[in-house]
Amino acid sequence: MAKLFGGIEAGGTKWICAIAENPANIHASTRISTTHPEETIKKAIEFFQSHEAEFGAVAAVGVASFGPLDLKPDSPTYGYLTTTPKPGWANTDIVGPIQEAFNLPVGFDTDVNGAALGEAQWGAAQGASDFIYLTIGTGIGGGGMVNNALIHGLVHPEMGHLRIPHDWEQDPFPGICPYHGDCLEGLATGPAIEARWGLKGEQLPPDHPAWELEAQYLALGLVNLVCSLSPQRIILGGGVMEQEQLFPLIRRRVQELLNNYISAEEIQQDIDDYIIPPGLGTQAGILGAIALARQAASVHDRSLK
Amino acid sequence: MAKLFGGIEAGGTKWICAIAENPANIHASTRISTTHPEETIKKAIEFFQSHEAEFGAVAAVGVASFGPLDLKPDSPTYGYLTTTPKPGWANTDIVGPIQEAFNLPVGFDTDVNGAALGEAQWGAAQGASDFIYLTIGTGIGGGGMVNNALIHGLVHPEMGHLRIPHDWEQDPFPGICPYHGDCLEGLATGPAIEARWGLKGEQLPPDHPAWELEAQYLALGLVNLVCSLSPQRIILGGGVMEQEQLFPLIRRRVQELLNNYISAEEIQQDIDDYIIPPGLGTQAGILGAIALARQAASVHDRSLK
Repeated sequence: MAKLFGGIEAGGTKWICAIAENPANIHASTRISTTHPEETIKKAIEFFQSHEAEFGAVAAVGVASFGPLDLKPDSPTYGYLTTTPKPGWANTDIVGPIQEAFNLPVGFDTDVNGAALGEAQWGAAQGASDFIYLTIGTGIGGGGMVNNALIHGLVHPEMGHLRIPHDWEQDPFPGICPYHGDCLEGLATGPAIEARWGLKGEQLPPDHPAWELEAQYLALGLVNLVCSLSPQRIILGGGVMEQEQLFPLIRRRVQELLNNYISAEEIQQDIDDYIIPPGLGTQAGILGAIALARQAASVHDRSLK
Repeated sequence: MAKLFGGIEAGGTKWICAIAENPANIHASTRISTTHPEETIKKAIEFFQSHEAEFGAVAAVGVASFGPLDLKPDSPTYGYLTTTPKPGWANTDIVGPIQEAFNLPVGFDTDVNGAALGEAQWGAAQGASDFIYLTIGTGIGGGGMVNNALIHGLVHPEMGHLRIPHDWEQDPFPGICPYHGDCLEGLATGPAIEARWGLKGEQLPPDHPAWELEAQYLALGLVNLVCSLSPQRIILGGGVMEQEQLFPLIRRRVQELLNNYISAEEIQQDIDDYIIPPGLGTQAGILGAIALARQAASVHDRSLK
């Protein structure tokens, strides 16, 4: 039997756990409400234990988590959630209890870096060495790869908190980021749309002016990411991007804002293949966790050679 | 005798050529005015040829060039300057004639990626796997490393062209970027300072309000780079940064703008060691070219094994 991997998509409202080999072979999965850390982590561990008789032990576990996280391998709090405002969850050790329960390699990264790795392995980022995965939903987060490796650096990217031009006359809405007010997340996240217009995004018609404004902000963010990282592709996921009318609006605004300064066919001519939805759709998160498990297993295997 | 390397810092107004082993051992150097491409390249080649009798052939040549450049190894125009507005220089093959003259490995990258590599090897970026090198002078350019490798991606970063908030009431100056008006470069480059205040930066006293405004724009740019790339260090070079009063102003504004969102001692406590001048000073450019030559030689050596 092929190797199986455990994946945990650890979100602020729910944890999805799955046992899988790859997208075509997901053997079991479950959904756990995010309550207290101890209870939530315990339920996740029990899920994997309860399937051991049927499938045997998994080869590794991957956790793609909401953040911010401590990802520094040599830090005493490696594997912890750090300063999250989510009640009860600040300074929670995520990796420790899982490693203790299973004595297995545990891959751990941000939800967006996990999704990026899954997209690189099986989805829309295949063949790209440098790309960005951005999710626009209840928050805005971004991850990605440079030279075929996930970006970590000092902490991890926080692409939702880019500062962008905000035309107060056109849009007097002050933004909802508790830290920065009108950063990208403050202006363009799902709850910002709802706070500005008094209706949830899915209640606004596709020709509502909300979407031109949303596309303007997202395009400004993407232009900044293009100038910082020069990605070969940009994947946009998350609940807000289920409003598919956004894609053509964003693509056009990115071209207008760059104004042919960056001489690349991918942007100037083929932008429909440059700014794209995730290939793994709504499964990008959990498959990202499986991809992190696979990566952890392969790093572990190499270290034994 | 230790291996010697040839370096060319190819700028829009001058080319600096040097024969060196490392910063402590620069055996010869020259300065060539940037006239027509053919003449300029020919003079650079002649410089290296004229020293062959004395030092023997160099092991490789590195070119750190103004851009934009074609850096895709498999492109038919690899090694070319592409869409530069500099008269006569658009679509100029830089690498071809040098390779033809010497039949040696030629390293080729942007001036800022070259400087970043030099800083990584011998300067202020030693020990950092992820960092940014930004130059603020007649233009603004940025390069850097992620996971110990230079960032290239689709083309190469264009960090000068980040879009940042511009308070038109406080600063009605429209910006001077011919492509984007008030992008970072449009607002904060040396010529923008001169156009806004009617005096060159070096003619403005250190307590002139120009510097608070300059620090505000540069800090907004840096915050965006921190959110995109999560660098472990940021090196700021170029003529404008010779105004040393800018460093404390920029550091304070970066902290204020991030507002403790990014939980990292390096930013919250030790920002004096986080946003820093180049370790190689005004030699960062030419030593970057030497570092590119060393890298090219070592890639070449590995390919022979």
